[in-house]
Amino acid sequence: MEKLPKLYVETTQEECVKDGKTLAECVVIMGNVEVWLKENEELPDFIDPSRAKFLKREVYDRFYLYVDRTEQKMTADVILVLPDGRTRIYLKKGDELMILPVEGFTKTLIANVGNRVRTGDAFAAVTTRKGEVHYLKPPKTGTVVFIDEITNRPHYLYYILPEE
Amino acid sequence: MEKLPKLYVETTQEECVKDGKTLAECVVIMGNVEVWLKENEELPDFIDPSRAKFLKREVYDRFYLYVDRTEQKMTADVILVLPDGRTRIYLKKGDELMILPVEGFTKTLIANVGNRVRTGDAFAAVTTRKGEVHYLKPPKTGTVVFIDEITNRPHYLYYILPEE
Repeated sequence: MEKLPKLYVETTQEECVKDGKTLAECVVIMGNVEVWLKENEELPDFIDPSRAKFLKREVYDRFYLYVDRTEQKMTADVILVLPDGRTRIYLKKGDELMILPVEGFTKTLIANVGNRVRTGDAFAAVTTRKGEVHYLKPPKTGTVVFIDEITNRPHYLYYILPEE
Repeated sequence: MEKLPKLYVETTQEECVKDGKTLAECVVIMGNVEVWLKENEELPDFIDPSRAKFLKREVYDRFYLYVDRTEQKMTADVILVLPDGRTRIYLKKGDELMILPVEGFTKTLIANVGNRVRTGDAFAAVTTRKGEVHYLKPPKTGTVVFIDEITNRPHYLYYILPEE
C-alpha cells in the first residue's frame, strides 16, 4: 500500500498550543515565517499568537471535511506533505477545486495524489457494461490533491487544484 | 509559453544579507523555522546566522549547475516553487536524481516539471527514422524537477527525483 500524504489544517491557537507547548504536530505561520513543530515542542518566543495562523496535523482521509462540495472551494487553509516528504502543497481557504467523479462498471484510477494532470491527460478510465472504455480528462490542468472513495455512486471523487 | 518554476539555492550568508537586509529574494532556514524574504527586507532578530541556512533566488534554467551529472546527485540544497505558486519541492545536497536522456529522430515531451511519473508512465516519446515509436519510462517512480534542453545529443535530459 502506498504511504499517505500528511495533512495540516488551520485551527485555533488553543487546539495547537497549551502552556507554550504544542499539543500535536503543528505548523505555525506568521507573515513570511513558518515554524514546523512536533508534539510537545515549545512555541518560539518570536511568534505572536494573535498574528499567527495555526495548522494542526489531521488524518489525511478527513481532507474532504475541509472542502465545500457544493461551492467546490476550500473552507480552510491546509498544507499537504506528499509521501516523498519533499513536496508540499499549500491550499488556501476559498481556493477553487475541481471535484470530478469516476463512475462506471469498472473503474481504473490513473493519476495519484500529487500528480499534475493536463487537459489532455486521463486521470482515470471507466468501462461500461458493453465494454466501452472512456478516459476521463480534467477541464483544466491541475494537481490531484485528494481522491475520495465513497461507498455509494459515483465511487470515486477526484479533487484537483486547477492552475490559475 | 508556460511560466517557469522559481528556484532557490543554498549559498552563503554574505550572498543573501548585508547590513541586516536581504540583497535578493532569499529563504532562510534555521532548524524547524523557515523565513521567506523578498529583496531589501530585514533579517528577523530571531535568526542566528551561524546556525541558519541561506537559499538565494537563482535563474531556474541554471538548476543543472547544482547537480553532479556523473554521480547523479544534488550538490546543494534547493527549493523549487512550481508555477502554481502552491507547490514546493525541497531537494537536499546528496539527493539522488535519475537523469534520463530523450534522444531520437523526433522527440515528444510528455511529462512536465512537477509531474509525478510512475514506472508504467511514459515521460517522453521518441520516433526513429523508420517511424517506430518508443515510449520512455523511468526505472523508478519519481517527480520531474528539471528538463534540460541541450544543443548536442541527446537533446533533452529529464531530472527526476525518485521516491524512496
